[in-house]
Amino acid sequence: MALVVQKYGGTSVANLEKIENVARRVIKERQAGNQVVVVLSAMAGETNRLIELAQQAAEDYDIREYDTLISTGEQVTVSLLAMVLKGMGYPARSFLGFQVRIMTDQAHTQARILSVEDAALRRELEKGVIAVVAGFQGVDKDNNITTLGRGGSDTSAVALAAALQADVCEIYTDVDGVYTTDPGICSNARLLTRISYDEMLEMARAGAKVLQPRSVELAKKYDVPVYVKSSFKDDVGTLVTKEDKEMEREVVSGVTYDRDQAKITVIRVPDKAGVASRLFTPLSEHNIVVDMIIQNASLEGYTDLTFTVSRKDVKETKRLIEEAAREVGAASVEVDDQVAKVSIIGVGMISHSGVAAKMFSALAQEGINIMMISTSEIKVSCVIQSKYTELAVMVLHDAFGLEKTP
Amino acid sequence: MALVVQKYGGTSVANLEKIENVARRVIKERQAGNQVVVVLSAMAGETNRLIELAQQAAEDYDIREYDTLISTGEQVTVSLLAMVLKGMGYPARSFLGFQVRIMTDQAHTQARILSVEDAALRRELEKGVIAVVAGFQGVDKDNNITTLGRGGSDTSAVALAAALQADVCEIYTDVDGVYTTDPGICSNARLLTRISYDEMLEMARAGAKVLQPRSVELAKKYDVPVYVKSSFKDDVGTLVTKEDKEMEREVVSGVTYDRDQAKITVIRVPDKAGVASRLFTPLSEHNIVVDMIIQNASLEGYTDLTFTVSRKDVKETKRLIEEAAREVGAASVEVDDQVAKVSIIGVGMISHSGVAAKMFSALAQEGINIMMISTSEIKVSCVIQSKYTELAVMVLHDAFGLEKTP
Repeated sequence: MALVVQKYGGTSVANLEKIENVARRVIKERQAGNQVVVVLSAMAGETNRLIELAQQAAEDYDIREYDTLISTGEQVTVSLLAMVLKGMGYPARSFLGFQVRIMTDQAHTQARILSVEDAALRRELEKGVIAVVAGFQGVDKDNNITTLGRGGSDTSAVALAAALQADVCEIYTDVDGVYTTDPGICSNARLLTRISYDEMLEMARAGAKVLQPRSVELAKKYDVPVYVKSSFKDDVGTLVTKEDKEMEREVVSGVTYDRDQAKITVIRVPDKAGVASRLFTPLSEHNIVVDMIIQNASLEGYTDLTFTVSRKDVKETKRLIEEAAREVGAASVEVDDQVAKVSIIGVGMISHSGVAAKMFSALAQEGINIMMISTSEIKVSCVIQSKYTELAVMVLHDAFGLEKTP
Repeated sequence: MALVVQKYGGTSVANLEKIENVARRVIKERQAGNQVVVVLSAMAGETNRLIELAQQAAEDYDIREYDTLISTGEQVTVSLLAMVLKGMGYPARSFLGFQVRIMTDQAHTQARILSVEDAALRRELEKGVIAVVAGFQGVDKDNNITTLGRGGSDTSAVALAAALQADVCEIYTDVDGVYTTDPGICSNARLLTRISYDEMLEMARAGAKVLQPRSVELAKKYDVPVYVKSSFKDDVGTLVTKEDKEMEREVVSGVTYDRDQAKITVIRVPDKAGVASRLFTPLSEHNIVVDMIIQNASLEGYTDLTFTVSRKDVKETKRLIEEAAREVGAASVEVDDQVAKVSIIGVGMISHSGVAAKMFSALAQEGINIMMISTSEIKVSCVIQSKYTELAVMVLHDAFGLEKTP
């Protein structure tokens, strides 16, 4: 008997017919003799409807209340699925964040899971009950409802799998698995059957929307095997797992892009100790995630500092950085939100020289100017003008021959 | 400085515009220097939408999951009102049942409040925060979400007022207060400025929809002064309070009706000890409330037993009673759901003879047949054919001269 965690996204529970479809999948797993924990998102569109209500309620709405509001979306789907399962003759029980207890920090709208209590869930699972857990939500130490940010249900699923030492965590979604790149841009994108945690992490961070990066971090940390698969087909999908020999043969596994980028440049920053900290501390205090940072070589004691943030954070970032720039004596702040990031990812990169150079030359041949570069052991990212995104993805997918099975 | 509990029903929070209207009323109270606890229902129509989802999910849906589902309605309105209040510059905080903690028994869909913890609320009130509490919901000892049944938000409001020893509990609704009878039926129905707890209780039980009976019981028990008033006007409404001299002058205060009645007759029940208990115990075990019970005089060791239940319980009652009837050896079970109950209510009744007789003769003059009668110290109820409901109400309102101010 295995313990299986299955997570279904918003399109898989968009209405009662689809919830019944989910119920049938869950029952199949249960009939195979396994214990099943189901994690659900809100019905597709529901979270956006609730966000609109919040935006109408107050211009600068309170984020504690926002979390209380939007967490109702998952509360609806889990109670409905539990009803449907019981109606089909299977014992089932819904669990909200505060009932499991999924404990988080107090960073409303993007809280991090601190711990998951497994006692209540285990008690029900041992009785043969299918546990249906609300994704995306948790509770802080003062019993405030918190939410984990977009895609947070993936993280809920992996955290539950880790806490329960589940045998596998299956993420059901509206795509077939993880592709070498977005099939919507590249018609010859290829489905990957396996991918390492690190590659998946870089792909998720670099803009592939298939899994929330935090969920991959957790899966890696607790060694949870994660399958990404379609909730509408019976295909095997993509296994996200530890690195293995087979993977090492691929130099580059995938090409990703992220249009949710804005580039901010602080001009003529005095080049002395403590300045960078003075600039970036206010951003982290406001939970603004800075992605890439580049600092030019110092010239006459001054330097230019460029970094990227999510477009939704541009307004607040500009306000905070302009204030900080004045204080440290920088000249001015420039914002460009017509940029995108394209990345190549692969565990094999580390042992192959010339991968980055090949990327730069492929982009250059199409006349695409590179504004920023950042590299890790298994990733090279370039910030380019937003309008070249699709072209860059196609060029890179071709240049590294990703359409071919290795 | 007074502590005021204000409850707003579904029509008062039906959309954001109306929620803003509520916010302005709340702020007015707060600006008068008072501490304010606001209790909200779900947006009008929302509870019904959720009930429909439950009915589609499973024919015989699970009531624990049902409570989890429909309690989202109030979760949405309280978070929105707290956002709106904060947006208007006033400190506010939403509280769900499990956050206050409003502890109830485990009777899902019609749970009773066992206790209300006041510490968390007091802490916020003392800081000047407006507390916005989800009505209708509570939590049982195992952290399951429970709901209090239709109109349960009234009970939430009174229970909070009692726990906090509030100076007053105001129930805002879409009518102006408590009338001598339904103004929709009787154009000369008169608004009552005061009514005693006992009369209000009998009126609520007898079908007046303005307050949930349980809320009146609680108000009486803890001596909470309750104002029923319109959320769209600035009228004083009706004060529900302890009996006073002035009230005693009125013989009959009001006429009510209740169409949510079904009559069940068990034919040829053996007339021996324990039989009634055997018949009614299964009903109470299934939380079915039996209203009136009449047993005919025994004839040759057999009797007919007639009782009424809410129409929604007819199906289950029939099933349970037919089973019990077989076991005790009764002949058969008959169901009539085309009945209604009309009642006259008044604290003065007890000291005036002939009130019941006057009621019976008024109905008889219109040819309305009385099927069942029940009386209390301050109420006489008759079960009649459903089609005569309006006629009976008008006749009784006239017969007791209720259009005139006493």
